[in-house]
Amino acid sequence: MTVTTTPPTSVPLGTYLAIRLAQLGLKHVFGVPGDFNLTLLDHIEASPDLTWIGFCNELNAAYAADGYARVKGTPMTLITTYGVGELSALNGIAGAFAENVPVIHIVGTTGRPIQEAGLLIHHVPPPKGHAPLPANHRIYPETSKPFSVAQEYLLDPRLAPSQIDSAISAAYKQALPVYIYVPVDMVAQPLPKHLLDTPLDLAIESGLESEQEEDSLVDEILTTLYAAKSPVILADTLSERFRLREEITNLVKKAQIPSFSTLLGKGLVDETSPYFAGVYNGELSHTGIAEAVHASDCVLNLGPLLSDSNTGGFTRKIKSENAIILHPLYVQVGDTPRRDGISFVPIVKKLVARLDPAKLQHSPLPQVTLRHDRPSPTPISLASLIHNVSTQFLRPGDVVIPEVGTVQFASPDFIFPADTRIITQVFYSSIGFSLPAAVGAAFAQRELNPANPSRVVLLEGDGSAQMTIQELGTMVRNKLNIAVFLLNNSGYSIERAIWGPQQGYNDICPDWKWTQLLSAFGGSEAKSCLSTRIETKKEEEEFFTNGIINKSDLPRLIEVILHPNNYPWRLDDQVKFMGAQNIAMYKEYSAKHD
Amino acid sequence: MTVTTTPPTSVPLGTYLAIRLAQLGLKHVFGVPGDFNLTLLDHIEASPDLTWIGFCNELNAAYAADGYARVKGTPMTLITTYGVGELSALNGIAGAFAENVPVIHIVGTTGRPIQEAGLLIHHVPPPKGHAPLPANHRIYPETSKPFSVAQEYLLDPRLAPSQIDSAISAAYKQALPVYIYVPVDMVAQPLPKHLLDTPLDLAIESGLESEQEEDSLVDEILTTLYAAKSPVILADTLSERFRLREEITNLVKKAQIPSFSTLLGKGLVDETSPYFAGVYNGELSHTGIAEAVHASDCVLNLGPLLSDSNTGGFTRKIKSENAIILHPLYVQVGDTPRRDGISFVPIVKKLVARLDPAKLQHSPLPQVTLRHDRPSPTPISLASLIHNVSTQFLRPGDVVIPEVGTVQFASPDFIFPADTRIITQVFYSSIGFSLPAAVGAAFAQRELNPANPSRVVLLEGDGSAQMTIQELGTMVRNKLNIAVFLLNNSGYSIERAIWGPQQGYNDICPDWKWTQLLSAFGGSEAKSCLSTRIETKKEEEEFFTNGIINKSDLPRLIEVILHPNNYPWRLDDQVKFMGAQNIAMYKEYSAKHD
Ligand SMILES: Cc1ncc(C[n+]2csc(CCOP(=O)(O)OP(=O)(O)O)c2C)c(N)n1
Ligand SMILES: Cc1ncc(C[n+]2csc(CCOP(=O)(O)OP(=O)(O)O)c2C)c(N)n1
Repeated sequence: MTVTTTPPTSVPLGTYLAIRLAQLGLKHVFGVPGDFNLTLLDHIEASPDLTWIGFCNELNAAYAADGYARVKGTPMTLITTYGVGELSALNGIAGAFAENVPVIHIVGTTGRPIQEAGLLIHHVPPPKGHAPLPANHRIYPETSKPFSVAQEYLLDPRLAPSQIDSAISAAYKQALPVYIYVPVDMVAQPLPKHLLDTPLDLAIESGLESEQEEDSLVDEILTTLYAAKSPVILADTLSERFRLREEITNLVKKAQIPSFSTLLGKGLVDETSPYFAGVYNGELSHTGIAEAVHASDCVLNLGPLLSDSNTGGFTRKIKSENAIILHPLYVQVGDTPRRDGISFVPIVKKLVARLDPAKLQHSPLPQVTLRHDRPSPTPISLASLIHNVSTQFLRPGDVVIPEVGTVQFASPDFIFPADTRIITQVFYSSIGFSLPAAVGAAFAQRELNPANPSRVVLLEGDGSAQMTIQELGTMVRNKLNIAVFLLNNSGYSIERAIWGPQQGYNDICPDWKWTQLLSAFGGSEAKSCLSTRIETKKEEEEFFTNGIINKSDLPRLIEVILHPNNYPWRLDDQVKFMGAQNIAMYKEYSAKHD
Repeated sequence: MTVTTTPPTSVPLGTYLAIRLAQLGLKHVFGVPGDFNLTLLDHIEASPDLTWIGFCNELNAAYAADGYARVKGTPMTLITTYGVGELSALNGIAGAFAENVPVIHIVGTTGRPIQEAGLLIHHVPPPKGHAPLPANHRIYPETSKPFSVAQEYLLDPRLAPSQIDSAISAAYKQALPVYIYVPVDMVAQPLPKHLLDTPLDLAIESGLESEQEEDSLVDEILTTLYAAKSPVILADTLSERFRLREEITNLVKKAQIPSFSTLLGKGLVDETSPYFAGVYNGELSHTGIAEAVHASDCVLNLGPLLSDSNTGGFTRKIKSENAIILHPLYVQVGDTPRRDGISFVPIVKKLVARLDPAKLQHSPLPQVTLRHDRPSPTPISLASLIHNVSTQFLRPGDVVIPEVGTVQFASPDFIFPADTRIITQVFYSSIGFSLPAAVGAAFAQRELNPANPSRVVLLEGDGSAQMTIQELGTMVRNKLNIAVFLLNNSGYSIERAIWGPQQGYNDICPDWKWTQLLSAFGGSEAKSCLSTRIETKKEEEEFFTNGIINKSDLPRLIEVILHPNNYPWRLDDQVKFMGAQNIAMYKEYSAKHD
C-alpha cells in the first residue's frame, strides 16, 4: 500500500499521528478496521515503531487498550471506525473514564464534503425515522463526550497538529480518555514536519503559583505527619494511574510506618515490605486492619477512589481531621478546607524526597486476625485457589487480573510477591473486561521486557468469560504469556449472592467445553497452548505442585470447578450491609415522595 | 423469589410492565441481568406469558432484539443494567434506530435516593477525574437519547403508567427504539391495576384531518397511476417495518404490473409471483432492471430507505416527476411538493382496497440479462453458494440473514420461495449483527408457529462471526432451528475490496476450528448440533444433494471455504463507482478549504 507522497518538509496527517504515538513510547496500536479508517491504518502499518493489533470486536479492543494503559502507564491508542465501531467501544471508554485510564480513541469518519452534504452513507445516523435529509454526521461523537477529557475534530489541516498534540497531552496529564475525529479525507493532508521536533508536553504541574507555594504545602504536610502519634500510609489506585508507583515504594521504604493499600490499589504497597500492613477495605477487611486505620491520627491517603466496593460498601471511616488526602485534583490536610485544583503528582515527589523518617512516630503493624468464608460444598474453593495461586504460582513481575464477580471480593487475599500489580475494575465493574484487558496487559508486559516478558495471570468468571471469550483467539494468535484460571461456578454467582440465588436469569449458557476453547480458537493443544481442568483436591494439588503450566509461557487455561454459592465473606457482608442501607434509604425516600 | 405484595387493586410496577409487554404479543424478553435489574427480572420470570432469554452480552442481546422485531413486526424488549449494560447495547440500539426497528430498551438503574444523594456506587459515572461528589447518575441515558424516539424516566409512581404506555406506543407506531429508565426502588411501587384494562394505543393515523382528505389523497395517487403508461411497483424496507408486507403482496397480486424490491426490501415482493421483476439497486442491478425502473413514468415507491448501499451507491435515478413516494413520514406524488407529516400506513391500505387493476396499463416484465462475478480461484464461490442455497436449500417461511460483507452484495441473487424474508443491515452495517439477530429471529419464528417453527438461514462472514461468536452457545442452549453458513474467506474480504487487499489489518484471527464451535459452546455433535465443512465442488454437491443438514432442525453450521478475493460484481462496481465519486468530492473540497 503506498502512502500519498507529500513535500519533504511535510508529513501526511496519518504519519504525523503515528509519529506522535511512537514518541509516547507505544509499540502497538489496538483496534478494528473499517471503511473509514483503512487509509489511516496504512500509516500505522508503515510506521517502523508501531505494530497494528486487530481485535475481534471494538469493545474488546477498548478493554485491551485500558489493560495496556494500566500496566504501561502511558495512554494507549484505540482506532475504530465511524459509528458502528466507536459506539461498540463506548462502554470500554466509559470504564476507562470511570477508573482514570488514558485511552486515545481515534475514530476514522466520513469525509468532510460528504458530511457537509449530509449524505446518507452507510453507518450515518439518519434524521429520526428517515425524515428528509440532510443527515447530521456529528451525532456519534456526542456519545463519547461525557467520557472524554478532550475531543478534537480534525477538520482543518492548519489546526490539526496542535489539536493532535493537545489531545495526547490531555490524555497523559489527566489520565483520562480523549477522542480524535479523523475524516477519511484528512488522513493524507500534509502537515509541517518540523512540528514533530517539539516534544509533546507531558509535564504535570501542581497548579500552585510557584515552587515556594509547593514547598510550603509540603512543609505543612510534613509538619502534620511529624506531629502525628500513629501516622499510616494508605495508597490507592489514582496513584498508580498517575505513575506514582515507584514514589510510593520509596515512601514506604523511607517512612517505615504501617502502610496499607486498597482493593483497587492492591500491590501498590510492596507486600513483601516489612511495613505492609494489609489491604484496607473499610469494615470489609480482616480484623485489625480497619481498626488500625480508623485509630490512626494521620492517614496519608494517596490517590483515593471512593466508590462503594473500594471502601467496603462505604464503611471507610477515616475522619477528615485524621487524614491527609493527596489527589490528582485536590489536596486536603486534616480539617483545613479542601484545596481544589492542586495535583498531587509533584507534591508526592517532593514529599518523598524531603521526608525525614527520624521525625515520624513509628507504630507497630496491626495484629490481624483473618476472617474466613463459609465453607464451600465442593472440594476447591475460591479461598483455597487464591491461597495456592499466591504461594505456588505467582512470581515477581506478574500482573494479576481478577474479573468483576466473586473472585474480585476474594482477591484482597492474594499474597503478592514484590513488583506485582493488580488490574481490576472494582469501580466501573463491567464484566467481560478482564479477558481482553489481559490481552492488552500482555502486550504491555512484552513492551516493558521484550526479551523475557513477565506474565499475566487472569482469574475469569464463567459468566464474564462468555461476554468476551473470542479474545482467546487473539491470545493464541499473538502467543501471549497469559495464564487464565477459568472459574466455572455455573453462572452469575455474585448476582446469586445479591438477589435470586435460584432464579433462572442467573444461569448462563451451560456445558461450554472450556478446555477446548484455546484449541477451537486457533491453538494447537500442547504445542501452542495448554488447557487443563481441576475439580478435586487431588487435581488441585497435582496442578500446583507439578508446575507444568507454571513453567510454560504459552497461552494456557485452567478450568477450576467451584460451587455456585461459594461466596467470599466480603461479598456476603457487603450485600448484607448495603442491602440494609438501601432498603432504609428507599423506605425513607418513598415515604416522602410517593 | 417472592414479589412484593400489593393491594388487590394494584400491581407492582414490574408486573405492570410485564403485562403491557405480554399485551403486545411478546412471549420472550431478551437481555442480561445486573445488580440494578434483578428485581425487575423477577416480574418477567413470574409472568405466565413471558420467558426470559439471557444472552452472553448486551450488544448481542440488542442485535437479537432487533432480529426478533424485524420478523415479528412488534417491538421487542431488551433489559439491561445501568451504565455497563446499556452502553454495551448502544451500538445495537443505534442500528435499530438507523433501520427503523422498534426495540424497547428497559434499563434497571440505581435507586432514586442514591441518585439524589449523588453517591459513587459502582458503575456510576464519576465527576471528571474523580473530582469531589456529587456524581450525576443521569449521564448514561443521554447517550441513548439520539437513538430513541421516546425516553421515559420512571421516577414517580403516579406518572409511571402513562409513561410506560406512551413509550410502548411510540415504539410500535414509529417503529423506532425507546428507552425506559427504571430505578431499582420503583420496581415494587404499586400502580393501579385497572389501567391495564385499557388497551395500548397502537393505531397509526395518517396525520390527515379527515377520512375525506385521506380519500382524496388516495384518489390523487390512483389518478396518477391510472394515467401512467408504464407504472411499476418498487417496495422497500420501511414498508416491512410498518407491517405492510401483506398489503404489498395483495397490491402486487391485484395490480399485475412489474414489481421490484430493493436490497433491504428483498422478499417483500413475492419472488414466485409472475409480476416480480427483480431486485432494483440502482445501476448495480442485473442488466435490464434499472433500465425498466428508470424508464417507467410512474414508480410507486413504498417505504424507501435511500442510503448508499440500498441505492447502488446513489445510482438510483428515479425522477421525482415519475414517482409516487409513500413513506412513514411523508408522501410525494410526482412533482407536487412533498407533503410532510403524513404516514403511508392507512394510505397504502386504502390504496390496495380501492385500486382497480382494469384501469392500469400493464407493461411486460423487463428482459433481464444476468451479470456475473469475476471467476473465483477456488472451487466454491459466493455465486455458486447462493445459487445452490436458493435452489436446493431454501423453503417457504425461511428467514434469510446475509451478514454485512461480501455476501450482502451477492444476496440480491437469492431466488426466494414465497413467504421468505431477508434480514440484513445494509444501511447501518454493523458487522457481527447477524449471528445474534439470527438467534432473535429464531425466537420470533418459534412464536409465530410454535408447533413447527420455520427456519433461519444465516450466511455469516468469518470476520463478522468473530465479533459475536459466543451466541452459538445461546443457539445450542435454546435448540434453535438455525442453519449457519460460515463463510471462511480468511479475513475481511469486503475491506480488501475497498482498500488494502494485502494489508495485515484485513486479516483476522487465523485457524479457528469453526466446525468444533457448536460443540465447544455446549452442543453434542450429531445429537444436539450438526457441523460440516465444504471446500471442493464434490463436497458442495454432496452437501446440497444429501440434504441431511437441510432435513434437520438442530442448530447447524456449515463452514464454506471461499477465496479471500471472491468479490461479487456489485461490490466491485460500487467500490469503483463510489471511490471515484469520493475522490472527486475530496479534491474539490480540499481545493476550496485547505
Ligand atoms: C457488562 C455487564 N453486564 C452485566 C453486569 C452485571 N453483573 C455483575 S457481576 C455479574 C456476574 C458475573 O458472573 P461470573 O463472571 O460468572 O462471576 P461469579 O460471580 O460467578 O464469580 C453480572 C451479570 C455487569 N457488571 N457488567
Ligand atoms: C462493528 C463494525 N466494525 C467494523 C466494521 C467495518 N467492516 C465492514 S465489513 C467488514 C469485514 C467483514 O468481514 P467478513 O465478515 O469476514 O465478511 P467478508 O467481507 O469477508 O465476506 C468490516 C471490518 C463494521 N462494519 N462494523
